Amino acid sequence: MSISVKILGSNSASFAHNRHQTSQVVEIDNIFFLVDCGEGTQIQAKRYNVKISKIDYILISHLHGDHYYGLIGLISTMHLYGRRKTLTLIGPPGLLEIITLQLKHSGTNLAFKINLIEWKVGIQELILDLPKLTIKTIPMNHSISCSGYLFEEKENLRRLNVNCLPEQLTPFEIKTLKSGADLLNADGSVRYVNQLVTLPPKKHDSYAFCSDTRHQPEILNWIKGVDLLYHETTFMNDLVQRAQKTYHSTTNQAGQLAAAAKVKKLIIGHFSTRYRDLTPLLDEVKACFDKTYLATEGSIFKTDD
Amino acid sequence: MSISVKILGSNSASFAHNRHQTSQVVEIDNIFFLVDCGEGTQIQAKRYNVKISKIDYILISHLHGDHYYGLIGLISTMHLYGRRKTLTLIGPPGLLEIITLQLKHSGTNLAFKINLIEWKVGIQELILDLPKLTIKTIPMNHSISCSGYLFEEKENLRRLNVNCLPEQLTPFEIKTLKSGADLLNADGSVRYVNQLVTLPPKKHDSYAFCSDTRHQPEILNWIKGVDLLYHETTFMNDLVQRAQKTYHSTTNQAGQLAAAAKVKKLIIGHFSTRYRDLTPLLDEVKACFDKTYLATEGSIFKTDD
Repeated sequence: MSISVKILGSNSASFAHNRHQTSQVVEIDNIFFLVDCGEGTQIQAKRYNVKISKIDYILISHLHGDHYYGLIGLISTMHLYGRRKTLTLIGPPGLLEIITLQLKHSGTNLAFKINLIEWKVGIQELILDLPKLTIKTIPMNHSISCSGYLFEEKENLRRLNVNCLPEQLTPFEIKTLKSGADLLNADGSVRYVNQLVTLPPKKHDSYAFCSDTRHQPEILNWIKGVDLLYHETTFMNDLVQRAQKTYHSTTNQAGQLAAAAKVKKLIIGHFSTRYRDLTPLLDEVKACFDKTYLATEGSIFKTDD
Repeated sequence: MSISVKILGSNSASFAHNRHQTSQVVEIDNIFFLVDCGEGTQIQAKRYNVKISKIDYILISHLHGDHYYGLIGLISTMHLYGRRKTLTLIGPPGLLEIITLQLKHSGTNLAFKINLIEWKVGIQELILDLPKLTIKTIPMNHSISCSGYLFEEKENLRRLNVNCLPEQLTPFEIKTLKSGADLLNADGSVRYVNQLVTLPPKKHDSYAFCSDTRHQPEILNWIKGVDLLYHETTFMNDLVQRAQKTYHSTTNQAGQLAAAAKVKKLIIGHFSTRYRDLTPLLDEVKACFDKTYLATEGSIFKTDD
């Protein structure tokens, strides 16, 4: 399978230079995850042909407004457009309290259920386990409780090699082969050697979304070797002190982390409003890690590109 | 003086057909009032050259999201951009509770004070009394607590007629003339007849913003003779039953109200997302009240046009 990431916004703090705040859509095996939801995300979704009815999971990294002020509007629009399916909402403690209060004052009884999954602060945990993928939290070091998310496809099954396949296999025998075991005779001797009739599993891809964070080498533990890494680069390297003080990262820090983690591609975002032109940021990261791309709105990144 | 109204958004429910949700900027004597604040209002403000630093008063009509989900983002941006001036926030009970909870979870201590004025539900009251104008609430009949706002310039003072003016008047005498009284001699006899040395005051203008409401003839009490009336027309007349059920108004109802109130101009807005083309709505209102205009984004309406 492949993981794709569509950027809806990637500016920090507030809308500026025609750049919207953080939001992106991750798609794996036709399941759509919205990651963060800055103000105007539903408008950006429309602009970039994302059907909000298809989004069944929303993951919020933290409760700074540039990462979630669009959430209540999106939920309200889902309600107005007749959603009935459960929406799974993953985020920090406090998120549901805010949504619930806003719905109460608007007199809204949602026509769908919200399945809330609150993560524990500062601890990596498996937060979602679906048949073909898992999502784990990635603890961030920010000024308030904050978490990134690691999307990992599960190890795929071996594929049958149709050219070498014995005929008339039962469903049980097929599953046995796909799971990597040999087919046996009644006396326990090998009837078909698995590797002679199957092909290796397809690659299982991974994507790490690192939200607002100070540079923290321990994050390496959780992102090593991912195919695609999104990491914030709020500031250029000359503002490393400011980055430290405001719990953000610089271009160099993101580039060095990507290099140390041996990721395949790096997407940078969460740009400070002080930067109108983003080329200098990109250049600075590329000096550390060449395969770096700007999270410009509407861009799509795929693990198998 | 003149009152001007700049439309930032006027769609109902959610963003559709490139139309944003309700928000408008009212300007009187260089004081800027933001009336309602749908999601993305700060982006619309930038698009239409409204400096948010100039906005000192925000009035919210009710707590349906299409009228206030942009408020917390706007307040956060004011904070990030270094606002120190007090912001006066006028709205229904519950508004401050929501804002306070969101600021708490984002760890934000606002660098400016919010002066909250909560109105009483269903009762017209004087909610703001400034040197040159007043704002009163206009009770709406909606599914949750909802209020419109009546902006009225205060009666202006008489103007000195420089061609007929006696020389060497003291400041006290000038103010006496401006307030409409004669100047007197020590024995009480008239020294200068006011009307011979002054001109009538300039006209004092008025603007009524009627938010979401069922058609309610009693609203006439509060909007009679205003120069400019904004009224919702969520539905066309064939959906009068739906309007009644959802506590909204139709084109005909708004037009008839404007005619009965003898207003000078009517602006219609809060269009249902079912209407891509708004011309049929405008035509239907115009059949009842000719001087009607669509609240299209970026439009500016003035009481002295």
